[in-house]
Amino acid sequence: MNEQHIKALKAIVGEENCYDDIAHKLAYSYDATRNRYEPDAVIFPRDEQDVSQILAYCNTHRITITPRGAGSGFTGGALPINGGIILALEKHMNKILEIDMENMLARVQPGVVNKKFQQAVEEVGLFYPPDPASEEYSTLGGNVSENAGGMRAAKYGITKDFVMALRAVLPSGEIIRAGKKTIKDVAGYNVAGILIASEGTLAVITEITLKLLSKPKLRQSAMGVFPTIQAAMNAVYKTMSAGVTPVAMEFLDNLSIRAVEERFHKGLPKNAGAILITDVDGNLPEEIDYAINKIQEKFYENGCTEFKKATTDSEIADLWFARRNASQSITIYGSKKLNEDITVPRSKLPELLERIEQIAQKYSVVVPCFGHTGDGNVHTNVMVDGNDPKELEKGHLAITEIFKVAIELGGTLSGEHGIGIAKAPFMPLAFNESEMNLFRAIKKAFDPNNILNGGKMGL
Amino acid sequence: MNEQHIKALKAIVGEENCYDDIAHKLAYSYDATRNRYEPDAVIFPRDEQDVSQILAYCNTHRITITPRGAGSGFTGGALPINGGIILALEKHMNKILEIDMENMLARVQPGVVNKKFQQAVEEVGLFYPPDPASEEYSTLGGNVSENAGGMRAAKYGITKDFVMALRAVLPSGEIIRAGKKTIKDVAGYNVAGILIASEGTLAVITEITLKLLSKPKLRQSAMGVFPTIQAAMNAVYKTMSAGVTPVAMEFLDNLSIRAVEERFHKGLPKNAGAILITDVDGNLPEEIDYAINKIQEKFYENGCTEFKKATTDSEIADLWFARRNASQSITIYGSKKLNEDITVPRSKLPELLERIEQIAQKYSVVVPCFGHTGDGNVHTNVMVDGNDPKELEKGHLAITEIFKVAIELGGTLSGEHGIGIAKAPFMPLAFNESEMNLFRAIKKAFDPNNILNGGKMGL
Ligand SMILES: Cc1cc2nc3c(=O)[nH]c(=O)nc-3n(C[C@H](O)[C@H](O)[C@H](O)COP(=O)(O)OP(=O)(O)OC[C@H]3O[C@@H](n4cnc5c(N)ncnc54)[C@H](O)[C@@H]3O)c2cc1C
Ligand SMILES: Cc1cc2nc3c(=O)[nH]c(=O)nc-3n(C[C@H](O)[C@H](O)[C@H](O)COP(=O)(O)OP(=O)(O)OC[C@H]3O[C@@H](n4cnc5c(N)ncnc54)[C@H](O)[C@@H]3O)c2cc1C
Repeated sequence: MNEQHIKALKAIVGEENCYDDIAHKLAYSYDATRNRYEPDAVIFPRDEQDVSQILAYCNTHRITITPRGAGSGFTGGALPINGGIILALEKHMNKILEIDMENMLARVQPGVVNKKFQQAVEEVGLFYPPDPASEEYSTLGGNVSENAGGMRAAKYGITKDFVMALRAVLPSGEIIRAGKKTIKDVAGYNVAGILIASEGTLAVITEITLKLLSKPKLRQSAMGVFPTIQAAMNAVYKTMSAGVTPVAMEFLDNLSIRAVEERFHKGLPKNAGAILITDVDGNLPEEIDYAINKIQEKFYENGCTEFKKATTDSEIADLWFARRNASQSITIYGSKKLNEDITVPRSKLPELLERIEQIAQKYSVVVPCFGHTGDGNVHTNVMVDGNDPKELEKGHLAITEIFKVAIELGGTLSGEHGIGIAKAPFMPLAFNESEMNLFRAIKKAFDPNNILNGGKMGL
Repeated sequence: MNEQHIKALKAIVGEENCYDDIAHKLAYSYDATRNRYEPDAVIFPRDEQDVSQILAYCNTHRITITPRGAGSGFTGGALPINGGIILALEKHMNKILEIDMENMLARVQPGVVNKKFQQAVEEVGLFYPPDPASEEYSTLGGNVSENAGGMRAAKYGITKDFVMALRAVLPSGEIIRAGKKTIKDVAGYNVAGILIASEGTLAVITEITLKLLSKPKLRQSAMGVFPTIQAAMNAVYKTMSAGVTPVAMEFLDNLSIRAVEERFHKGLPKNAGAILITDVDGNLPEEIDYAINKIQEKFYENGCTEFKKATTDSEIADLWFARRNASQSITIYGSKKLNEDITVPRSKLPELLERIEQIAQKYSVVVPCFGHTGDGNVHTNVMVDGNDPKELEKGHLAITEIFKVAIELGGTLSGEHGIGIAKAPFMPLAFNESEMNLFRAIKKAFDPNNILNGGKMGL
């Protein structure tokens, strides 16, 4: 990018919203993968019109654009791997435009932080379920672009289940609307559907209309202790198929339990094969009782040795402590964490965990696992010494085998974190050449000059 | 199409599965729109391999293909408007391949009839909610291709909410898989999402993986009588935003009530402005009571003059009789029914119905309305004398105005029936040139030679 371009872009957004100094380039060079790629400039669009003009300009001049929310992505989606500009949406385009109580929906700009949005709708008695662990900082635009999941997905689904409509700017600068404020809409192709999880490669999302629910009044949590991981995994899918729909059904394996215990001394069952932590909600005490009792019954039928209920906020927080602190605790096993978010059909969880254990042995690596078993999503963490190239290589070989097993079991490379650059090399494991070519054709339909976040998703 | 082509196609599927005689061409020349277009041949593929070979052949020779399920579509999607072949999927490709109780999902071929599928899964205690009024004959492939809705959409959503994965054949003959048997999957673009509601214009769907729920044990229905249509429409959205989620919330306006009463003498309230019919379900009596009481409260707060509950199957059937027979009864108002399925945000229903009334007066046409108010979907029926060209013209002018009002209120041309040829002329009312061009680019990405159901959806 030359001076000319910077000048032209400054003319669009104003001096104070376009930077090519070292400080800005550094600040926007990384995301949660901790990889670094410097952009040529960082731009803060003020509104959709700015986005439109920026894209039109960059399209004409073939300048690469990387949209960015909070940069909390785990797969490098927001990294400017080919330079060009970072389009940072969290600074100005972060307003909740409307909370429509009558139709139970909200309109927001993409830079709104997830948690802020949850709080705003809860203040008026409504409820936005998608709650990624990054809720404190990740943006709704980033959530839509990755189709983020969260703890409550087992019952309520993920970001895509709440997106009713989008506004977006195509690489040409053209502004499009996709979807409606209506529950049903079958006019035209489902463009909103394909923009969800498109990782900023097809269009820049400038407005999101989200469905809201009414906030359930009651909640109860419970924890089950299991002698083996297989027993716990059987309990998961047998509970779910018995007709209860817990809000969450999360697990920690023995390695994860030990790690949390070592760091926080909470009196967790250190010899358990696994624990399951579950939440149910509803408006009536009878609903809650029915669900908790059913879960207890199914847990015991599948080898549970201890079942603990929690009702008050502090009891619930205690039960959830282990799950919330698993990710940071497992670093005791190695300085570098190769963490993936493979997902399989729930009934395949027992086999998946068994195969991961075998792979860990084969490469003599430690692989603590935890995650959203209610929807078949397992966070597998291959822990290695980051300074030892040999260890790193072993880790990567283990990961590749884990991916292969997930696919073999009918699962996916990614349940929620996306492909970005981190999983791009594995795309051919999951998709055949026809499928990859179709992705490329779709990319071309939206972005014929490949100016938007090129080189991502293995395309 | 010449003899050569017929011979080649017969070589693929066998003599007994390829016909170009008059009887077959006539039998497959129409759908529920009652328009007629004769194909050059009718082919019954036996499996995905047949579909693949047929498409590859037709792609090479630029022969148009129109996929067809039961032909119950209301917008002409299955009409071979440019001749070519009808690819009829309901004859051989109509098997339920798997009902997976553990993961609560099923795999089916596209030609499976909706109701047969509902029954098969209910036999094992599971539940497939989408229930279009055409459930007795429409196919799951057709349901996916139109994203069909039904009575239970207010609580459970529509076809798209149950599609987990698809197999499909691209116009090139290439076989692709889209989606997974997992609840979450963010690897690659959401191709399944864009095939849903694509009306057979992008690919031929050859296998569908559908999510199932566990069947709720209890059900109760109720009816509310309202003095005016506005009162009823207010009651709809105020009930829904009070946090109850009825399975269904259907309405009949005064004209529809009178029509059913005239034909069937069921003792319906002939002077009511509207009636609302609602269903709730659950596993606990307390849930049902809570929901029904809340609905009753909200109905009375909004002017309801009579509220009737039903619990037994025969009481429920009685309450639903009026709704189920509305469509056929309103033919007393005119030999030709121009029926549309516009949908608006629920809070706009009162205004929508008021504006429709004004349009009916302006053109002095009768426009009985009924439908799925729980999701904002109104079946507007402009009734005219089909033999009177003047009347027909008036009817079409009224329809155009009704579409404009729906769009103006933030609604859509179609909540469930699709665009096909019937609504193609109205697409520019709903979409700007950038949006239409994007649809065309997507079409081209899948079907560069435009062999699949060309000329549909206004593209
Ligand atoms: C500690 C931690 C916990 C996490 N927990 C979860 C979890 O539980 N579940 C989960 O799903 N993920 C989780 N993540 C991953 C991450 O938070 C999510 O992917 C999140 O959705 C990213 O949002 P963001 O605003 O940070 O987006 P970024 O990282 O800035 O961007 C992500 C992608 O979206 C694109 N993008 C962003 N905004 C737009 C826009 N407006 N238009 C077009 N493209 C855009 C970017 O180009 C990029 O490709 C976690 C991350 C961390 C660090
Ligand atoms: C009395 C009546 C009541 C109705 N009630 C409802 C209702 O309540 N809700 C509702 O949504 N609709 C309703 N409909 C409309 C219609 O039944 C639905 O649109 C249904 O989904 C069509 O299914 P079909 O098998 O008849 O498809 P068809 O009419 O044969 O085809 C519909 C479209 O799908 C395409 N198609 C079919 N199969 C495939 C495939 N395997 N691959 C690719 N494309 C394919 C066709 O090319 C066509 O464009 C009703 C229709 C009637 C006649």
